[in-house]
Amino acid sequence: VVKREVVQLITPGTVMETKGLSDKQNNFLTSITHFEDETFGLAYADLSTGELHTTVINGPVQQLVNEVYSIGAKEIVVSEKFPPDLVQMIKERMVTTCSYEEVTDIPMEFDQIVKNLEQEKLQMSVGRLLHYLKKTQKRSLDHLQPARFFELDQSMKIDLFSKRNLELTETIRSKGKKGSLLWLLDQTVTAMGGRLLKQWVDRPLINPALIEQRHDMVETLINEYFTRQEIRELLKEVYDLERLAGRVAFGNVNARDLVQLRKSLSQIPHLKAMVEKLPIENASILDNMDECEELTTLLHDSLIEQPSLSVKEGNMMKDGFHEELDKYRDARRNGKTWIAELEKRERDLTGIRSLKIGYNRIFGYYIEITKANISSLPEGRYERKQTLANAERYITEELKEKETLILEAEEKIVALEYELFLKLREEVKVYIPRLQKLAKAVSEIDVLQCFATISEDRYYTRPSFNDERKVYITEGRHPVVEKVMDANEYVPNDTWMDKENEMLLITGPNMSGKSTYMRQVALTAILAQIGCFVPAKEASLPIFDQIFTRIGAADDLISGQSTFMVEMLEARNAIVYATQNSLILFDEIGRGTSTYDGMALAQALIEYIHDKIGAKTLFSTHYHELTSLDEELKKLKNIHVSVVEQNGKVVFLHKMKEGPADKSYGIHVAELAELPKELITRAQIILEKLESQPKSEPVEVAA
Amino acid sequence: VVKREVVQLITPGTVMETKGLSDKQNNFLTSITHFEDETFGLAYADLSTGELHTTVINGPVQQLVNEVYSIGAKEIVVSEKFPPDLVQMIKERMVTTCSYEEVTDIPMEFDQIVKNLEQEKLQMSVGRLLHYLKKTQKRSLDHLQPARFFELDQSMKIDLFSKRNLELTETIRSKGKKGSLLWLLDQTVTAMGGRLLKQWVDRPLINPALIEQRHDMVETLINEYFTRQEIRELLKEVYDLERLAGRVAFGNVNARDLVQLRKSLSQIPHLKAMVEKLPIENASILDNMDECEELTTLLHDSLIEQPSLSVKEGNMMKDGFHEELDKYRDARRNGKTWIAELEKRERDLTGIRSLKIGYNRIFGYYIEITKANISSLPEGRYERKQTLANAERYITEELKEKETLILEAEEKIVALEYELFLKLREEVKVYIPRLQKLAKAVSEIDVLQCFATISEDRYYTRPSFNDERKVYITEGRHPVVEKVMDANEYVPNDTWMDKENEMLLITGPNMSGKSTYMRQVALTAILAQIGCFVPAKEASLPIFDQIFTRIGAADDLISGQSTFMVEMLEARNAIVYATQNSLILFDEIGRGTSTYDGMALAQALIEYIHDKIGAKTLFSTHYHELTSLDEELKKLKNIHVSVVEQNGKVVFLHKMKEGPADKSYGIHVAELAELPKELITRAQIILEKLESQPKSEPVEVAA
Repeated sequence: VVKREVVQLITPGTVMETKGLSDKQNNFLTSITHFEDETFGLAYADLSTGELHTTVINGPVQQLVNEVYSIGAKEIVVSEKFPPDLVQMIKERMVTTCSYEEVTDIPMEFDQIVKNLEQEKLQMSVGRLLHYLKKTQKRSLDHLQPARFFELDQSMKIDLFSKRNLELTETIRSKGKKGSLLWLLDQTVTAMGGRLLKQWVDRPLINPALIEQRHDMVETLINEYFTRQEIRELLKEVYDLERLAGRVAFGNVNARDLVQLRKSLSQIPHLKAMVEKLPIENASILDNMDECEELTTLLHDSLIEQPSLSVKEGNMMKDGFHEELDKYRDARRNGKTWIAELEKRERDLTGIRSLKIGYNRIFGYYIEITKANISSLPEGRYERKQTLANAERYITEELKEKETLILEAEEKIVALEYELFLKLREEVKVYIPRLQKLAKAVSEIDVLQCFATISEDRYYTRPSFNDERKVYITEGRHPVVEKVMDANEYVPNDTWMDKENEMLLITGPNMSGKSTYMRQVALTAILAQIGCFVPAKEASLPIFDQIFTRIGAADDLISGQSTFMVEMLEARNAIVYATQNSLILFDEIGRGTSTYDGMALAQALIEYIHDKIGAKTLFSTHYHELTSLDEELKKLKNIHVSVVEQNGKVVFLHKMKEGPADKSYGIHVAELAELPKELITRAQIILEKLESQPKSEPVEVAA
Repeated sequence: VVKREVVQLITPGTVMETKGLSDKQNNFLTSITHFEDETFGLAYADLSTGELHTTVINGPVQQLVNEVYSIGAKEIVVSEKFPPDLVQMIKERMVTTCSYEEVTDIPMEFDQIVKNLEQEKLQMSVGRLLHYLKKTQKRSLDHLQPARFFELDQSMKIDLFSKRNLELTETIRSKGKKGSLLWLLDQTVTAMGGRLLKQWVDRPLINPALIEQRHDMVETLINEYFTRQEIRELLKEVYDLERLAGRVAFGNVNARDLVQLRKSLSQIPHLKAMVEKLPIENASILDNMDECEELTTLLHDSLIEQPSLSVKEGNMMKDGFHEELDKYRDARRNGKTWIAELEKRERDLTGIRSLKIGYNRIFGYYIEITKANISSLPEGRYERKQTLANAERYITEELKEKETLILEAEEKIVALEYELFLKLREEVKVYIPRLQKLAKAVSEIDVLQCFATISEDRYYTRPSFNDERKVYITEGRHPVVEKVMDANEYVPNDTWMDKENEMLLITGPNMSGKSTYMRQVALTAILAQIGCFVPAKEASLPIFDQIFTRIGAADDLISGQSTFMVEMLEARNAIVYATQNSLILFDEIGRGTSTYDGMALAQALIEYIHDKIGAKTLFSTHYHELTSLDEELKKLKNIHVSVVEQNGKVVFLHKMKEGPADKSYGIHVAELAELPKELITRAQIILEKLESQPKSEPVEVAA
């Protein structure tokens, strides 16, 4: 019985083969540690690229779920004592496997990885992750990068519901990328760039300096059209350096991979030159854009252009790279030349023009003479070895001596090339951290050129930021809807909000474009804060710290809970965590219950946000009666979607206008639909009476 | 150049091959004729079964579209002068091809088909259809049945929207049969039964005597379990007689088809015996259940059990069926016997045991002797014909004579069998009308046993009908939802409506089951009127002449029109055409516009139906304020869906209760969702004030 040892465990979070991985998507294995003070440690690594991130979550459980969702973790690693209802909660949101690991101290060999982490919570989280990796992988993890600590407060917070509602990285219906904001944006050329783009979309910035830096770069790249095109062309030749580094660490690259690495590296000086040529200061990118010159030279000197696929067949290293190898190759070459000369000489001497020297694996080298010519051969000149149907094969002592020499050389070459290749691979390993740094710089350039490309193609504008909490968008568009629709049909809309107009109350019939308008404001803010230009003619924005949405479309029914309960939970989430720097989108809150009940809740919510929070808020509603709130709530403004009648049909213009919507739109449509005259008249009377109720008095705004 | 003539045009409405056809679905080609008085002639035929129906539509254009939709016409035939906007309207609803035919007089050979039609409009409609068929088919249409005139008023009218909303034959989402009422019901055994079932579902009856007749039969079949099982078993052996008749007419049946026909026919006496055995008068079915005894005998006498697939290879007819054929077969048989005897004799005479007589296509019959035995053969005994590697083949004059005789017989047999088969097929043609009548009777039995089966399996009850316009349903269920859900989880509900309670106003939160409840009442009425039992413990119903629905789920957006416009068009359709014998389901009418506007329309609609129509109406709404209408509108009753709180979560019990729903459900949920206390308090104050408005005075009901 052969004792088999487990060599490696492949789990959903540690898949490395490209079949299981999408090029433009990270595969993060995520560990979660639950501390007694109800905080959570989070650490996640992509084994294929070596990235490792960690943070501590002090906020509500919701925030943990949000993070795990936006990481897109296919596998989470927790202690067996981890609350099962939390695992359940995560699993309700996404398909993920749960694995267990109890040990949280740092394995000695990973000291370097945690050297930047001071908090014990972070160390424990990373420790759990590393132990699990060590246990399952049982192989070199040299490419793991030092853990990077990030603070959630350093990026715009968008909760899980809102990410879905806004369709940032996947659509609500198909759950696919197509139709999402990410899909629209993705003009990246490299797989690394694609992955970084997703990370950026997931975490818009809140530091204005950092944002402006990206905008500057995008603007420059737009202006420098030809340089940008050149950059795109160069990027096309750059291989996935991050994942390549991972494979080098695991020891499963072949000579062809390293040739691709060389080819990628040889683009870097050109790429760097292009970036330097840009009329803008670019130190951060340029500093990281390490050409790894020695590595390029090494690879250039060592490997031929088209090495064999297998590393055990020779034919990889260049002549002149290694003296001994050259000697063996010389010997082989000399032997072969000698044989070629022998053939020529013997032809001349025997006068048999068809005499030839051949080789096969069984008999080695032989001289072959066709039967018709055998009579011309002097008896005893060669030793007969094999008889074929129409030829005889011979050998000579000298030929066999040379054969031994050639074959011995061959054997030595193959062995030596393999040895040299392994050595080369080890040498490449040393460069892993530098390659990873380079990969980051390349990805960044790629995402920035992507922003420039999309911004130019779709006529986006550079937004400016203001400190007065103003939202001034002229002719704004919904980026995805605009792309999907015929451009000529799309109707742009302005958005004007400032300290006097904190809230927009939007009225108008169903399907007239209220949700699209609300989403477009949020997407514009997100685009601006990830560093991209925005779909508008002009835009001045505040920096939003958080975005909250409650939009009806996402009927992701959680088992057993009523839709209205979900609606209220999302509303609560918004009003508890929103600040005056946040953006809130509420779409028809309250419609799931009876009228006055829903209307009362809607009004209370509006008042609460207006008086206590002051967040920028877009609130769409069918409660037309709420439009009179603008008398009491100073910062509330009414807008509506305009509707016209054409040939007896109702046509939506998708244009937002000031003031409340037409109060009797419904009755008007009923008239167009030719409902009985007396019914219409009666409806009008009822409406008038409902309207004439002394409303403002009893439903006055709370002091 | 060969001149090619068009032999047949295959159009979407005339596909005959089974690949293009679903067994359980008719493929109706439909002609529409537009008359000057704005009425429409409609005629439709299924070429595969020979059915032909015709009617005149006096109602609104809508009704025409409804009919074409419920026919499921894949192709319509109209004059070139037919209004193009009407074609457009039809095409918006369904995938259909439009073809043109101007001639409307009746082709002479079809006199018999229209002999029952008196109205010229009907004749013209059928004429157009027949001309188009003649033009495209260019072959025998002998199986077309005499046109059957039907009046739309003889069945319950359900408009297109409602058919979709109620998912009678296809679901809203997938547009497939699965999940529809038809899918639930379909326990038919034969394809003919399946097609008839769909026709019945599309046209529920309104004549109580006819309905009761079906119920009697269903009840009997439920009670006579074993007889019913026997009937099901027998039906399994019955081939699709209708389509078979069509193929006989077209001359593309082979002997195997006719054997299947024989097999089917041989079941009929047993089937008839079973039906006769039922303790119920069944004249109408029994009269049509024509055993076609002579045809059975003819087929029995003529065809063997397993005839060849091709009709040009013989091996179809029985021995004894035809004297000349028997003679040829005898000759062939005798010849073969003679040869067998020759072999035996020659073995004995020559002493060569391995001597054998063989046959091949080139040399015909021969005697074969192996080389080893040739020496034993007396010289000159046979004539040598062919030399093989290890044998010699010989012939004799006698052998060749017999060979000629056998081959001539063979040739004659094949020709004669083909001739006899064609004759037989012509004879079968004569029976087409009788087979079609039989098919109808068999289909009817099949659908009735299907009703009995489903009613027994799912514990349905026989409904009774009353003349007092009462709807008394105890523990009613939604037939499809109940099947899809776990039976234990389903919550049945009562429905009580009479002259004092014409309208039910249903309040309660979203997703709590209001729509399901409303649909269940409509489906119960439809099941009752197609002759099936109903999913309830007890049910007494009126006969409904029409059903109208406006249910939100069917967001089939018609290009350019607003959802609210569609809503109003559907509402108009209901209130213009409904009578006091109709059933109306209105689900949240008005929610697409602003509150008071929608509320005013909803109230006006309720009042209009209450005062002017008196139709049985189920009206669900979020306008809780409408619940006070019960004070003024005598025949309006409030009901609601009950909701309870369990462990801080809202749980729907799906149970309907009397009275209006909890006014502050929304605020209560908001409390459970832990919205800030002060917000809740404020919402309660607003609600109280909204509620305390002196409403009943100004919004009093119209006199």
